[in-house]
Amino acid sequence: MTVTLAIDCMGGDHGPSVTIPAALHFLRADRKARIILVGRTEAIEPHLGTALAEFGERLRVHRASEVVGMDEPPAQAMRSKKDSSMRVAVDLVKSGDAQAAVSAGNTGALMAISRFVLKTLPGIDRPAICSTLPTLRGQTHVLDLGANVDCSPEHLLQFAIMGAMLVAAVEHNERPSVGLLNIGEEEIKGNETVKQAGELLRKSGLNFYGNVEGNDIYKGTVDVVVCDGFVGNVALKTSEGLAQMLATFLREQFSRNWMTKLAAIFAMSALKGFKHKVDSRRYNGASLLGLRGVVVKSHGSADAFAFEQAIWRAAEAARNRLIERITERMERERSAA
Amino acid sequence: MTVTLAIDCMGGDHGPSVTIPAALHFLRADRKARIILVGRTEAIEPHLGTALAEFGERLRVHRASEVVGMDEPPAQAMRSKKDSSMRVAVDLVKSGDAQAAVSAGNTGALMAISRFVLKTLPGIDRPAICSTLPTLRGQTHVLDLGANVDCSPEHLLQFAIMGAMLVAAVEHNERPSVGLLNIGEEEIKGNETVKQAGELLRKSGLNFYGNVEGNDIYKGTVDVVVCDGFVGNVALKTSEGLAQMLATFLREQFSRNWMTKLAAIFAMSALKGFKHKVDSRRYNGASLLGLRGVVVKSHGSADAFAFEQAIWRAAEAARNRLIERITERMERERSAA
Repeated sequence: MTVTLAIDCMGGDHGPSVTIPAALHFLRADRKARIILVGRTEAIEPHLGTALAEFGERLRVHRASEVVGMDEPPAQAMRSKKDSSMRVAVDLVKSGDAQAAVSAGNTGALMAISRFVLKTLPGIDRPAICSTLPTLRGQTHVLDLGANVDCSPEHLLQFAIMGAMLVAAVEHNERPSVGLLNIGEEEIKGNETVKQAGELLRKSGLNFYGNVEGNDIYKGTVDVVVCDGFVGNVALKTSEGLAQMLATFLREQFSRNWMTKLAAIFAMSALKGFKHKVDSRRYNGASLLGLRGVVVKSHGSADAFAFEQAIWRAAEAARNRLIERITERMERERSAA
Repeated sequence: MTVTLAIDCMGGDHGPSVTIPAALHFLRADRKARIILVGRTEAIEPHLGTALAEFGERLRVHRASEVVGMDEPPAQAMRSKKDSSMRVAVDLVKSGDAQAAVSAGNTGALMAISRFVLKTLPGIDRPAICSTLPTLRGQTHVLDLGANVDCSPEHLLQFAIMGAMLVAAVEHNERPSVGLLNIGEEEIKGNETVKQAGELLRKSGLNFYGNVEGNDIYKGTVDVVVCDGFVGNVALKTSEGLAQMLATFLREQFSRNWMTKLAAIFAMSALKGFKHKVDSRRYNGASLLGLRGVVVKSHGSADAFAFEQAIWRAAEAARNRLIERITERMERERSAA
């Protein structure tokens, strides 16, 4: 199915040197996709080579004169940079010229701009950020990861619906299991918000598993893990910190002396297999859910391989009717309530 | 310095077969310590061998006829089992016969019993659970880890004081740095509770670093990380889940075929070094802080090595005047406020 994606070429730590090679590689692999590269034409052109000729109408460049800084306050980026590459990419989704936007820029600005331009879906109070994480069994989706620090039980229910519909869309799993992140499995555990969210989820039409604990994320106990943005952000960043520490320790041990360095060479295949399995680049691309359009946020430090994964996620979500699925499900839940 | 420790021999998944060997090994290493083994004499005696003769008055057995179940509701354990090994061990701290109690039993019951028997220190509203975690630079202390799911800014300040005094006592670091777990470094980040807690911490006499994020835990950015029990519990359990997943993947990769199995033998020294470095048993023993007595909770699944680490933590805290340090600091903060 044809799909058109708007790429914010200027975002992220590396800008066009990463975003454009990723977009071109994607276009070669997905022959029904179209890409609109958004940004400063003088920054984009040097990275195009013969691509415009190669892809014809499947590739075009859309000029945007401004760039949102990685540390720029979201409100400022939104108000004063109406011609930023980020803003124009989202505008293209709003106008229907593209079905999804992908950016590696400033998360807060992307959320603020997306919310302002696209608006939230009916019944959704706040958009949420949803990431995919590797598990013992495959992968799981966790939301919210930092957009919302104070959530009501109703917000958590909305997150659950959005997360479940994302899994339905991109994994073709129509009844994904949903877990509520808590500090114990029993229904009486947790704070008031979580207990009430549990009540709402039990009454909902979702495939609600019940409470899950932090370790269930990586066990792969459920397809979707729901939590408020404060807890989700801490869980995600704690994981990043632990993974980095373990990688450092493993490297240190293998470079201790000539014996262990030799062992590292023997163990190369196993260590490479391990590295591939937990390569965070494969999971790059967080979905901004609850908006009237598909927006995917890449990690700012993404390389071309990682950024391309974010493009694939956007294409998958747009092709599999993510927005329509969330809208339909919200209507069903509201008419049942 | 002489110190007497009351050991709940019956707690944990393995009971006396783990707790008693650990206690005896500890007594051999620490020649100024005394131990009171608490529990059913018929369960304890088979594990003693010639220990009573070997240690003389440094070791005695204190009979307790009941055992708190690992899944028993805390309120029930407290009300109906007044002669449980857990309760009697804490009673011995209250009476002054012991300076600290160690248990691998049911966390909720241990907290409820300790709070009921020992009471909280002046100015402390709620006790908190504090664990030590390995970091890139050494170790850090995180609290609360699950005792308190709804915390006020004042509670978080109290946790910070208790955590800082624990580090002062056991690490002989008189000005430990304290970080407030948040979802960004800037003061404006986070929910209302955390923002107000930041204000209180800035005004306090503590060595307050400011906000830290999840990844700072394992970076070792600060000596003490403060958070509410919901967030702390999720961070800890998420870490456990991730570590288990990574260990499983590493094992899988090294047992893929005869080549990788051979590589594992070559890499044994490096892999063992890695395993030692991140061995969670070395960090076993969470402190129940804010009580009028030292109580240390061992992981339920601890083996003898791990349980002995919990005993060492209890001995260190008692010898280094933990309770007095928290009391003095609370007085100082309150007279300054």
